[in-house]
Amino acid sequence: MDIITGAQYSLVYNAFSFTFATMAATTIFLWLGRSQVGPAYKTALTISGLVCAIAAYHYYRIFESWQDAYELKDGVLVVTGIAFNDAYRYVDWLLTVPLLLIELILVMRLTQAETTSKCLRLGFAAALMIILGYPGEIASDNTTRAIWGTLSSIPFLYIVWELFKGLGESIERQPESVRKLVKDARLITFGSWGFYPIVYMIPYTNLGGGSVETAVQIGYTIADLIAKAGVGVLIYVIAVRKSAIEYPDIDHQRA
Amino acid sequence: MDIITGAQYSLVYNAFSFTFATMAATTIFLWLGRSQVGPAYKTALTISGLVCAIAAYHYYRIFESWQDAYELKDGVLVVTGIAFNDAYRYVDWLLTVPLLLIELILVMRLTQAETTSKCLRLGFAAALMIILGYPGEIASDNTTRAIWGTLSSIPFLYIVWELFKGLGESIERQPESVRKLVKDARLITFGSWGFYPIVYMIPYTNLGGGSVETAVQIGYTIADLIAKAGVGVLIYVIAVRKSAIEYPDIDHQRA
Repeated sequence: MDIITGAQYSLVYNAFSFTFATMAATTIFLWLGRSQVGPAYKTALTISGLVCAIAAYHYYRIFESWQDAYELKDGVLVVTGIAFNDAYRYVDWLLTVPLLLIELILVMRLTQAETTSKCLRLGFAAALMIILGYPGEIASDNTTRAIWGTLSSIPFLYIVWELFKGLGESIERQPESVRKLVKDARLITFGSWGFYPIVYMIPYTNLGGGSVETAVQIGYTIADLIAKAGVGVLIYVIAVRKSAIEYPDIDHQRA
Repeated sequence: MDIITGAQYSLVYNAFSFTFATMAATTIFLWLGRSQVGPAYKTALTISGLVCAIAAYHYYRIFESWQDAYELKDGVLVVTGIAFNDAYRYVDWLLTVPLLLIELILVMRLTQAETTSKCLRLGFAAALMIILGYPGEIASDNTTRAIWGTLSSIPFLYIVWELFKGLGESIERQPESVRKLVKDARLITFGSWGFYPIVYMIPYTNLGGGSVETAVQIGYTIADLIAKAGVGVLIYVIAVRKSAIEYPDIDHQRA
């Protein structure tokens, strides 16, 4: 277990608690929002809420595991010997990353055939990306880390290609009032994901053990907040605006 | 208690947590999906969600029991002496396996008489199959295990016969757009169940204690994920597509 300071411990501790609260709150916001959108957009909000619910569960577990791993008593931080279970992150991503891509596809309201094929292809690539990243994350040497990291970036590049090339034409067919928002959602998804490989590579830097641990935890937490709660709210706004156009009888919530 | 390694312990631990999250998420997905299908399909989604909810509860219990049975401290795995309660699985199956067959029958929307008779016959056979399997699962010798396993396979064979022969004609009457999906649901149900007897027979192999324990737990977990969450989502897609045909005034979510 890396040696971290009391201040670093508290920073990470509070960041985990903040993230649990944010994810749980966003979940409820998105599920309650289902009644304000047209039928075609309900599933997009269901899935966006599920992503935040699953993340809330895992941040609760991560928070508890962090609490069990250290003890801050009389201002002194003691390592308890119980391992901090970082694997919760990968378990979370294995579920949420495919769902994040699916919510983006659902809010675009493509044809049934396109929706099915894109959800399957992107979902599978996302799961593969996470599975290939994990052996590198738990590796103790940086070479193993680099090999799995590189393998993991192959499905990542495929997803980027699909998002920017494969979905490009479909985005141009979106109503004008949401076209920019859909592009933003895509860019934020891509941008926040670009953050993960950077955090993944922090152990290559010269930072000390405790600083690395703190930077990795805070980095992943910020990326999760943007990719899940941030993108979720954007999906909600897109769904509300498209419902206003496509279901004019819905007395919709302006957003 | 079998001797397992720290890595095996963590793998099973994370698989249980993953499965709890997946089952809980699928439950909410299926229940929220009730508002997107016609009245005739609401019960199928209620039951499919219940199956996942019951499984989520039991995986939470199994997770906690696993945690209590071992302690991983300073990288060393210690057996606490508290027994891991594997019976949760049988308690779960006793409830969920009959319900799984019922959700499959309900989504087919047969006549009332057919629905009642098939639900009763298949539900009863499924419960009998689980009850007969249990004495073998807890048996310490492989002969007792084989006897109860064989008895348990009699209702299993009856269920297979009902699914492929008894329901075959009804499946041919399903709308063309879902006929293949209903067949897939039946095949996945059968295929994932075929997995259980294989896992049941793992103790006959030459694998060591810890590896057997790990293989049994991971095997049952994967089979549960496919049979419950996987089939549940398939039932949802079938219900949405049939609703679109049978309730054309529902401005349904395309799926």
